[in-house]
Amino acid sequence: MSLARLVDVHTHVYLPRYAALLRSRTTLPRIITSSREGKPDDRLFILDRDTGRPVGSQYWDRDEKLKFMDRHGIDMSVVSSANPWLDFLPASEAQTLATQLNEDLEQYCADSPSLSPSLKRLYGFGLLPLVPEISTAALLEAIEQISKLSHLKGIIMGTRGLGKGLDSEDLDPVWAALEKSGLVVFLHPHYGVDVEAWGEKDNGHVLPLALGFPFETTIATTRLILAGVFDRFPSLRLLLAHSGGALPQLSSRLASCIEHDPVVASRLKHDARWYLGKLYFDAVAYGPEELGFVSDVISRSQRYEAGGSVPTNTAVDRALGSRRMLFGTDHPFFPPLQPTEKWKSVVENLQAIDAVTGWGQVEKDGVRGANALSLFNLV
Amino acid sequence: MSLARLVDVHTHVYLPRYAALLRSRTTLPRIITSSREGKPDDRLFILDRDTGRPVGSQYWDRDEKLKFMDRHGIDMSVVSSANPWLDFLPASEAQTLATQLNEDLEQYCADSPSLSPSLKRLYGFGLLPLVPEISTAALLEAIEQISKLSHLKGIIMGTRGLGKGLDSEDLDPVWAALEKSGLVVFLHPHYGVDVEAWGEKDNGHVLPLALGFPFETTIATTRLILAGVFDRFPSLRLLLAHSGGALPQLSSRLASCIEHDPVVASRLKHDARWYLGKLYFDAVAYGPEELGFVSDVISRSQRYEAGGSVPTNTAVDRALGSRRMLFGTDHPFFPPLQPTEKWKSVVENLQAIDAVTGWGQVEKDGVRGANALSLFNLV
Repeated sequence: MSLARLVDVHTHVYLPRYAALLRSRTTLPRIITSSREGKPDDRLFILDRDTGRPVGSQYWDRDEKLKFMDRHGIDMSVVSSANPWLDFLPASEAQTLATQLNEDLEQYCADSPSLSPSLKRLYGFGLLPLVPEISTAALLEAIEQISKLSHLKGIIMGTRGLGKGLDSEDLDPVWAALEKSGLVVFLHPHYGVDVEAWGEKDNGHVLPLALGFPFETTIATTRLILAGVFDRFPSLRLLLAHSGGALPQLSSRLASCIEHDPVVASRLKHDARWYLGKLYFDAVAYGPEELGFVSDVISRSQRYEAGGSVPTNTAVDRALGSRRMLFGTDHPFFPPLQPTEKWKSVVENLQAIDAVTGWGQVEKDGVRGANALSLFNLV
Repeated sequence: MSLARLVDVHTHVYLPRYAALLRSRTTLPRIITSSREGKPDDRLFILDRDTGRPVGSQYWDRDEKLKFMDRHGIDMSVVSSANPWLDFLPASEAQTLATQLNEDLEQYCADSPSLSPSLKRLYGFGLLPLVPEISTAALLEAIEQISKLSHLKGIIMGTRGLGKGLDSEDLDPVWAALEKSGLVVFLHPHYGVDVEAWGEKDNGHVLPLALGFPFETTIATTRLILAGVFDRFPSLRLLLAHSGGALPQLSSRLASCIEHDPVVASRLKHDARWYLGKLYFDAVAYGPEELGFVSDVISRSQRYEAGGSVPTNTAVDRALGSRRMLFGTDHPFFPPLQPTEKWKSVVENLQAIDAVTGWGQVEKDGVRGANALSLFNLV
């Protein structure tokens, strides 16, 4: 039997305290509580033009998370609050709630079953009260709080920052503190792009989720690169949701556009592609070719180090990139439309890892769990 | 010596008649004419929040196009009007101008030097007056006009259609006529996504060009897939600018989102990934890993045919996908910031083709030119 662990780094929760808030609200985001044939029939509305989706105990009940993990052979999950986090709250409320939710999540993990004498089955990403009008001091306090909660290994973050996006210099003290703390920053989308882009047809949630979400992550990360954040904070550990969205496929175009634009051509220390090798990518892309390509793009980043010694025509070693990729499920989102023993969305991501050409057992075991244990200092 | 041809399928022109229109305008799109030290110092403004870029004879002078081709060893170019085409014109004006510009472009090509007894060095993509309020009859007339102009081999098209996007049923007669005509439809972006997404920092044109353009192409193509256009018009030949933008990398996520959404789950004939194998992709992606990945995504489409016989765990034959990929330069856009003999943007795309792992000489020659000759029936 293999000792390899399966670790889910992209799995969400609405903690009971947060779910209660969603139930109490009359505008987005909210849970609308009703009943059908005597059973609760709650629906969750979080997106612009959202038509809602069924929401139930799988979103807040820890036992449901553990059952889901057992059913899919997941040994450990690093759980994060689901979007839209605290984005919609006034600063003081966001600050109070962040503190409480971080304590709640610590408890959620600390009381979870043990995986081994030294490991729990649940760890977590905390929350910062990252909203307009918040003080830098409050953000630094939250980082300190999370650093002291031993089961929280990072923070999950949206893309709005203090309202001007993540490329605002206002966030430099936050990046500095996060870099120093060693906490992993899980960058996750919520807003997509302007809904006008989706047109008038009813395509359900497909366009905002399949395209808008990855676009948002791509834009946010690109703006971080262009703002020099990775030049100033080179040890920041940023984990990108949904395998970095479209960033890998657009990264050579990005590098070319930068090099051909007088405004930015000489601003950065390295070719844009170099920065992709400093990032971490979840493996939530649903296809083996996508994962292999992301792995290539990470591997090739060495070629693009300013003054580096790797020629740009050197073939990539795909194995190398796998070390920065980590399995995830996006649970409890994307449930099967018809009940099945295992969720198709999970099975697809596992099969994708298994089918990547050029990855051996070591690379696959790494992506499935060993990379996460290492990233979160759990070995 | 190799008989392999280098053919540029992504190369633009503002025909003199169109450039004169841009000069006459007081709102976007426009050319602002001024002079610096006695020399003309014209600048082109086409994008929202555009800060302009130098524009000169390389945009309208055919001799400049041919000189550029000679300098880069390009045997043949299939030239298209640059964005934003006729999008901003009232219907009657768009219709008149489309007819004239199609005649102009035919002349531009027909009078060009010969490459061989049966081939010219220049061919073209015509224009449809695809604007709100235009009649279907006018669009069908334009398709008929272009079909009869022997050097026009396709049309270039933006993403707005008649104002509601390309997924509107209003366009079904147009798709039907295009399918019947055999004209290649070159889908090209102009609008990107809402500028709010780019934030407040001055990053030049990098974000709208590097990300906005490919996002727009991705959205338009996805909307076409979701609207069943490729199910209804299976022989339509659509060529995607910039290697399909982000569509390849998001295609498995798209397939998964479709399968998990009750609104669309059973709407299409095939898994979303199948449709990518029906498309053509220019090779304007600036990196070998990107091109190899696009090739994989085309190759794998066979696996995703409804009721097909190729198991989903079959490794892809990367060579297969190369047949639907075609070299392009995006000239006269992306000139080098400092004068150089060869343009870096062109050299990068050629080097990328040459460096794709898993492509042999046949595949590389195909992407460089043979695929274009075949697609445009020039063999």
